[in-house]
Amino acid sequence: MQDPQGAHATAAPASHSDASLEPVEFEVERYHHWKVAYDGPIAKVTMAVDPNAPLREGYELKLNSYDLGVDIELADVVRRMRFEHPEVRVVVLSSGSDRVFCAGANIHMLGASTHAWKVNFCKFTNETRCEIEDATDASQQIWVAACNGTTAGGGYELALACEEIYLQDDGSSAVSLPEVPLLGVLPGTGGLTRLVDKRKVRRDRADVFSTTAEGIRGKKAVQWNLVDAIYPRSKFDEKVLERAKALVATASKELPGGERKGVVLGKLAPEKRANGRRYRHVDLSWDKATRVAKLVVKGPTAEDVALVEKGGEAMRQAGSDVWSLRAWRELDDALLHLRVNHQDIGMVLVRTEGDPATVLAHDAALARVRDHWYAREILLHMARVLRRFDNTSRSFFALGDRGTAFAGCLLELALAADRFYMLDDEDAKVRVGVSELEEGALPMHTGLTRLQARFLGEPSKLEELVGRRDLLDPETADEAGLVTVRLDEIDWDDDLRIAIEERASLSPDALTGMEQNLRFPGPETPDSKIYARLSAWQNWIFIRPNATGPEGALTLYGRPERPQFDWRRV
Amino acid sequence: MQDPQGAHATAAPASHSDASLEPVEFEVERYHHWKVAYDGPIAKVTMAVDPNAPLREGYELKLNSYDLGVDIELADVVRRMRFEHPEVRVVVLSSGSDRVFCAGANIHMLGASTHAWKVNFCKFTNETRCEIEDATDASQQIWVAACNGTTAGGGYELALACEEIYLQDDGSSAVSLPEVPLLGVLPGTGGLTRLVDKRKVRRDRADVFSTTAEGIRGKKAVQWNLVDAIYPRSKFDEKVLERAKALVATASKELPGGERKGVVLGKLAPEKRANGRRYRHVDLSWDKATRVAKLVVKGPTAEDVALVEKGGEAMRQAGSDVWSLRAWRELDDALLHLRVNHQDIGMVLVRTEGDPATVLAHDAALARVRDHWYAREILLHMARVLRRFDNTSRSFFALGDRGTAFAGCLLELALAADRFYMLDDEDAKVRVGVSELEEGALPMHTGLTRLQARFLGEPSKLEELVGRRDLLDPETADEAGLVTVRLDEIDWDDDLRIAIEERASLSPDALTGMEQNLRFPGPETPDSKIYARLSAWQNWIFIRPNATGPEGALTLYGRPERPQFDWRRV
Repeated sequence: MQDPQGAHATAAPASHSDASLEPVEFEVERYHHWKVAYDGPIAKVTMAVDPNAPLREGYELKLNSYDLGVDIELADVVRRMRFEHPEVRVVVLSSGSDRVFCAGANIHMLGASTHAWKVNFCKFTNETRCEIEDATDASQQIWVAACNGTTAGGGYELALACEEIYLQDDGSSAVSLPEVPLLGVLPGTGGLTRLVDKRKVRRDRADVFSTTAEGIRGKKAVQWNLVDAIYPRSKFDEKVLERAKALVATASKELPGGERKGVVLGKLAPEKRANGRRYRHVDLSWDKATRVAKLVVKGPTAEDVALVEKGGEAMRQAGSDVWSLRAWRELDDALLHLRVNHQDIGMVLVRTEGDPATVLAHDAALARVRDHWYAREILLHMARVLRRFDNTSRSFFALGDRGTAFAGCLLELALAADRFYMLDDEDAKVRVGVSELEEGALPMHTGLTRLQARFLGEPSKLEELVGRRDLLDPETADEAGLVTVRLDEIDWDDDLRIAIEERASLSPDALTGMEQNLRFPGPETPDSKIYARLSAWQNWIFIRPNATGPEGALTLYGRPERPQFDWRRV
Repeated sequence: MQDPQGAHATAAPASHSDASLEPVEFEVERYHHWKVAYDGPIAKVTMAVDPNAPLREGYELKLNSYDLGVDIELADVVRRMRFEHPEVRVVVLSSGSDRVFCAGANIHMLGASTHAWKVNFCKFTNETRCEIEDATDASQQIWVAACNGTTAGGGYELALACEEIYLQDDGSSAVSLPEVPLLGVLPGTGGLTRLVDKRKVRRDRADVFSTTAEGIRGKKAVQWNLVDAIYPRSKFDEKVLERAKALVATASKELPGGERKGVVLGKLAPEKRANGRRYRHVDLSWDKATRVAKLVVKGPTAEDVALVEKGGEAMRQAGSDVWSLRAWRELDDALLHLRVNHQDIGMVLVRTEGDPATVLAHDAALARVRDHWYAREILLHMARVLRRFDNTSRSFFALGDRGTAFAGCLLELALAADRFYMLDDEDAKVRVGVSELEEGALPMHTGLTRLQARFLGEPSKLEELVGRRDLLDPETADEAGLVTVRLDEIDWDDDLRIAIEERASLSPDALTGMEQNLRFPGPETPDSKIYARLSAWQNWIFIRPNATGPEGALTLYGRPERPQFDWRRV
């Protein structure tokens, strides 16, 4: 069944747009490119890209190639399934095309895109693939790739995000990463990293594989650990199903509790204004003249806390409108909107509104029910939104002034921000506080909590904060190491105005590079390596004339002319 | 004393050159920019850059700013001291200029340089700073920075490479990283990484610091851990000396044995030909038409082994001509020459000549004497050269054909290469083998051995090889996982020719990015983060119009016009 949600059956807006055109929307009305079928613990997700429904005009999505629109739908499939179909243990991803699993990102779309668009596109597709891995690892929804045809480039990268990869053994179906030999760019959607860091393919074999345009198939693909199994065409579906059933048993061990009845994700449907988007709990506004946006998140109310205190089942029955899901879905949507549709907004001022004590009570209640599958999914979702925040290339200043509630999960926004300004005024009574959720439930891509990342050099400060549940006044918070700049009422407006103006005047590229280096101290993981080592190199290559110049390999792909390279090695 | 070596007193060649001009030489004849004075366990290294002796014409090295020429000398100072002055425990780095410690990389040099030159320059300076840390950590030669004046940009990055940083407290001397606010580029010589990963400065403070052009001084610099201590101007030298003496005591614990009499590093003086450089043990040749170089390293002889078997003292008395030092210094020089002076040579074919059993015997003997300081220094040097190899952005194919000796330390060249081709022929009797040196003495920047990196996914293969000391024939080596492609005599020439031609035809940028991702599987360390996360972002920013376009911040630095930015965030 293509559309699990009756509500999605309305017509999609024709949003074939670059940043300068009609804004891209990340809420999906219906699937153009994916079919999803449920059969108890096994779901089948079929990629059947409609060539005539690209996100923007000017290219056809042939051979199951994808653009941002296809990936927005896939992200929706992955996320929705976790909430709406908690009974699913194994997801079999395959293709509806004959002899083609997926040909990767659409090259004509890439060729026609601006650098910023390409980078945003790659970042989102990377995040979607990390979501697939997160579903597999954390939600016991194991994604497997049933590659029933050619699996090339981004197609193989999609398969690499799955826990297991099965390839049809038909004498022609191969897996390949032809980006380097054919396009002069990298397999930048995690491909190179997952090859050597996730599947741990021997690096010299990875070198051969990544420079062999036609790819590798059959037994050699298994021997090199490029795929987990090959099955003959005649028995492919049967063998995949057999394997899926075996995995269901594995995935069904140690499941979190609660009745496994799904929660339908309701529409966010923000109110769209010329200079902002207003959601129920989130308000995003921007000023094109100053290139500064304001992002406000409203904290939970006492009623929200009371609901969570009733337990996981009560939350599940309340549906997707519970604050901890709704507010964070809204925040996610706002971040994506900002990234793709407002590229020239360089600064975001983040405020949280509400009562910090209520946020702490909320977090405590949520932590108590985390053994319920729905509460657990909500926490995993919050963690993903925060990681999207970490990876958003805008300068974030969190502003803790009158009426703000930077506590618990909302304090994470201040810790994820580049700076946290806090108002120190007797009357304003601004308070912050740490919750149990911050001590492991909301990890960064590096595997650290944001408190650990912050206090890498001051372990004693971390120790003092862990387990502390009282609200801290500005002076105490500052001494505890939570505040970047503490200002009194007199200085607040002027100092902040100057700081914002200064920040907004700096080179956006240098800021992006700086923030990417300062935000992720400490260890790296395969995930963080994708966003650091791999993506940074890909960004560099994307603007090199050898790839995107008039005679570059990406530009000339599919044309009779051969690319002309500047041979200097850098 | 400026020049510790009488041999260095000859005039320097006027090698003010870009890659297209007179080649840059990495052997230093005399110091133009540094003074080195020895006083028992304490050495003083004074940066006194001669403004009128830049490496290339067209800029002055004002305010103790540096170019590649200054850094080549610094690298020589660091390396030479470890071999020639093993009695030194603490190195005090300060400035000979009044009120300026170091202003960082020369901006006019950067502005006038090609992208490839900038990247090569940054890579070399990064390597030199890692050498300073390696001397501190592994050779008990603790470098400390006595910042007796303004310490800006690359100047502070140089200080960050030191174990401790002391700043003059005079009301004006500050440490700063003004790259982002003033130049629109990153502090790319390790600055951002060392700030948050080495000194573990809190990331929000690092954000404030890295966007504050005037920097931070006095007590705040200590509080933020930007420096270790501040001392008043009048007592600066005295306090620094006091601290240095205390560190001498710390560094003198657990020193390796052997008489601490230095070994003078003799000249390499390769024979320079139009299409090559011939050293005693290394031969580098290149073909501009095919853009392919050949790098041959001759293995040790039985006499070389006999010398090592006599022990560390015998080696020390034999001086810098021992194979394990001389051959590896030559290899290092060849790699640097290739990188900077032959940017369009994209492929390097690596061969090792000799008897693999002799290499294994040599490695075993060297491993037995590693408690002697000189043997230990030699091993540390070999490890550094191999890391330079890992970080060289050229495609390396190691060719194990007739007469080659890929065993022990020389097998590391095959493991560091992107591929290893091995000839499987009854008559040729090519053999490879693993030595004890490969099991920890020659680590990569990631902290792994090359065998560990290779077998991340096949731990059983690693177990089988560790401790194994016999020579492996091609089939056995292939089964053991050491060979990428095994070819018989009939296929060798043709298959290899095709592989080389194919490789040499691919986009040099895509290859650089691909190799950087495939060569470093597994964990990352601060060192590897510098070469990955930080350098890749810096490379990207260096070619963005916001930095180096006609209206970019780096281009316009020092001029009245303000940079014009494309505000889109990427």
